[in-house]
Amino acid sequence: MTEKTAVRLKSRPTGMVSAENFEVRREPAGRPDAGELLVRVQYCSLDPAMRGWLNEGKSYIPPVGIGEVMRAGAVGEVLESNADGLGVGDWVSGMMGVQTHAVVKADEVHRIDTSLAPPERFLGVLGMPGMTAYFGLLDVGALKAGDTVLVSAASGAVGALVAQIAKLKGCPTVGIAGGPEKCAYLTGELGLDGAIDYKGENVFKAIGDQFPKGVDVYFDNVGGDILEAAMSRLAMHARVVLCGAISQYNDFSKIRGPRNYMNLLVQRARMEGFVVFDFQDRYDKAVRDIADWLAAGKVKAKEDVQEGIERFPEVMNMLFTGDNFGKLVLKV
Amino acid sequence: MTEKTAVRLKSRPTGMVSAENFEVRREPAGRPDAGELLVRVQYCSLDPAMRGWLNEGKSYIPPVGIGEVMRAGAVGEVLESNADGLGVGDWVSGMMGVQTHAVVKADEVHRIDTSLAPPERFLGVLGMPGMTAYFGLLDVGALKAGDTVLVSAASGAVGALVAQIAKLKGCPTVGIAGGPEKCAYLTGELGLDGAIDYKGENVFKAIGDQFPKGVDVYFDNVGGDILEAAMSRLAMHARVVLCGAISQYNDFSKIRGPRNYMNLLVQRARMEGFVVFDFQDRYDKAVRDIADWLAAGKVKAKEDVQEGIERFPEVMNMLFTGDNFGKLVLKV
Repeated sequence: MTEKTAVRLKSRPTGMVSAENFEVRREPAGRPDAGELLVRVQYCSLDPAMRGWLNEGKSYIPPVGIGEVMRAGAVGEVLESNADGLGVGDWVSGMMGVQTHAVVKADEVHRIDTSLAPPERFLGVLGMPGMTAYFGLLDVGALKAGDTVLVSAASGAVGALVAQIAKLKGCPTVGIAGGPEKCAYLTGELGLDGAIDYKGENVFKAIGDQFPKGVDVYFDNVGGDILEAAMSRLAMHARVVLCGAISQYNDFSKIRGPRNYMNLLVQRARMEGFVVFDFQDRYDKAVRDIADWLAAGKVKAKEDVQEGIERFPEVMNMLFTGDNFGKLVLKV
Repeated sequence: MTEKTAVRLKSRPTGMVSAENFEVRREPAGRPDAGELLVRVQYCSLDPAMRGWLNEGKSYIPPVGIGEVMRAGAVGEVLESNADGLGVGDWVSGMMGVQTHAVVKADEVHRIDTSLAPPERFLGVLGMPGMTAYFGLLDVGALKAGDTVLVSAASGAVGALVAQIAKLKGCPTVGIAGGPEKCAYLTGELGLDGAIDYKGENVFKAIGDQFPKGVDVYFDNVGGDILEAAMSRLAMHARVVLCGAISQYNDFSKIRGPRNYMNLLVQRARMEGFVVFDFQDRYDKAVRDIADWLAAGKVKAKEDVQEGIERFPEVMNMLFTGDNFGKLVLKV
């Protein structure tokens, strides 16, 4: 019987995760029942939202239970199939967890076309972060040509695609990132109109300088001070897209709302949240659009591939320290 | 030459206004130039937004300057006309300030039809508060039949109309107000489905009890703890309409945003601000609708008429202590 290595939740973290919160176990991989597959997982996705899944209490999906395999999006190759439509050697993507092998229902994963792009890319621009950027900017942000756009965590998986889609839709776009290297990437490789280094600049002042007429669409991945700074610089009828609050995920007790939320009134603006799963029936169109943009060189993707399943907690924390550069994935 | 009594701003208040912030002066009323009117002001409107106009700094309109007549909506009768289209004896409404007489440009006021309703009502349900309720609920809140609706400051000028429009559109509606008398008015005279007494109940718990499936539209007039409680109880795709933050107007240094703003993400909800002036070209339709509802007894209006121009600061503070009951106006 095939054995697997799985990362299971041992205790709920307070603050950043640590190795003690998880157990790395060798155990039987199991066999696929009718309608199921045995998949050899190759890459796991690491996303800020995972931190929220570790907290007890109601959110948009239930928390990961103690003893359960850590939830994660992943891509892998089918080793055994007991389902129609998917066979050995096919590549699939789905919530397969942080483990080397997964037994999954065939209708809970979907086939990916690895001739289009390498498999790990289906965890980035062609996966959830890509869908999040696409629908968050175009639908929730209701982007119009000529809108001025500000994106936080702009060198990250979601932010970099948001910024690039905004640019290709003809919008002046500025990204916020940490450190000169990431900022140079934004204005160089990604061709943005400006970059703000939150580690080295007064963000409030910098946004004012870059947006003399205010921000039409602010895509927020971080919350906290940066959200507040952006909300002080909204243009009339601005849209604030709430995608995440990475600055707040590790300490919910200190979470705070933007003190200047009444600027939404002054500027007749709105702040709106969304969950990407709601756009599921339009993923195909989004994947086609993004794949076309990639092929045409209009959009660039960057993955930060870390290796070693046992390094999971440490790699996950890179998201919150800003140490990753590009879409963070774990090769298992 | 006609003399008038005018209330002029002497110093900027911190916290609640006091008599020392204003000077009550006898002075010449002035004469109307070409295109102008001399109006005998009968009623001034008292609105929470006036507190904001006393603070320095940018908002949706400039602050009242030191030495200037306190800005206020008002209704009055034309005493002298030097303009076409409006003559002596006509009643007009406009920003005529806290004073007994005003010289105003004829195109900055509009005629009101006092056969439709008594003049002070044009400062309430047929005036700015009425327009605010109508467009805030129907346009910004995008009310649909069957939505569950929660309104704060529900016995106030704006809130009471919001609640009644929601009811006549077929929506289960609950109001929040201070004290048993106001709450009895909401469920009795106004026919709401429920009332929450913020002075005597745990608002968070009460909202949960009254809205087991969550709130679809929350119309916020108050900010602070009540906004936060409502935001913990949002239904999927809820709309939070930001109309005011009366709990916060007297101390901007302590202002805070809703700590649970990320519920907007969890519930795919939005929070949106508006300024009623943006709907100006549709006021006529709104006035007709509301006048029809009043005539048919579907909407009830309640004014709290206070007398004496020299009592202006004290009367204005009633808005913030919750001592008024109904649309607050000052008979001058």
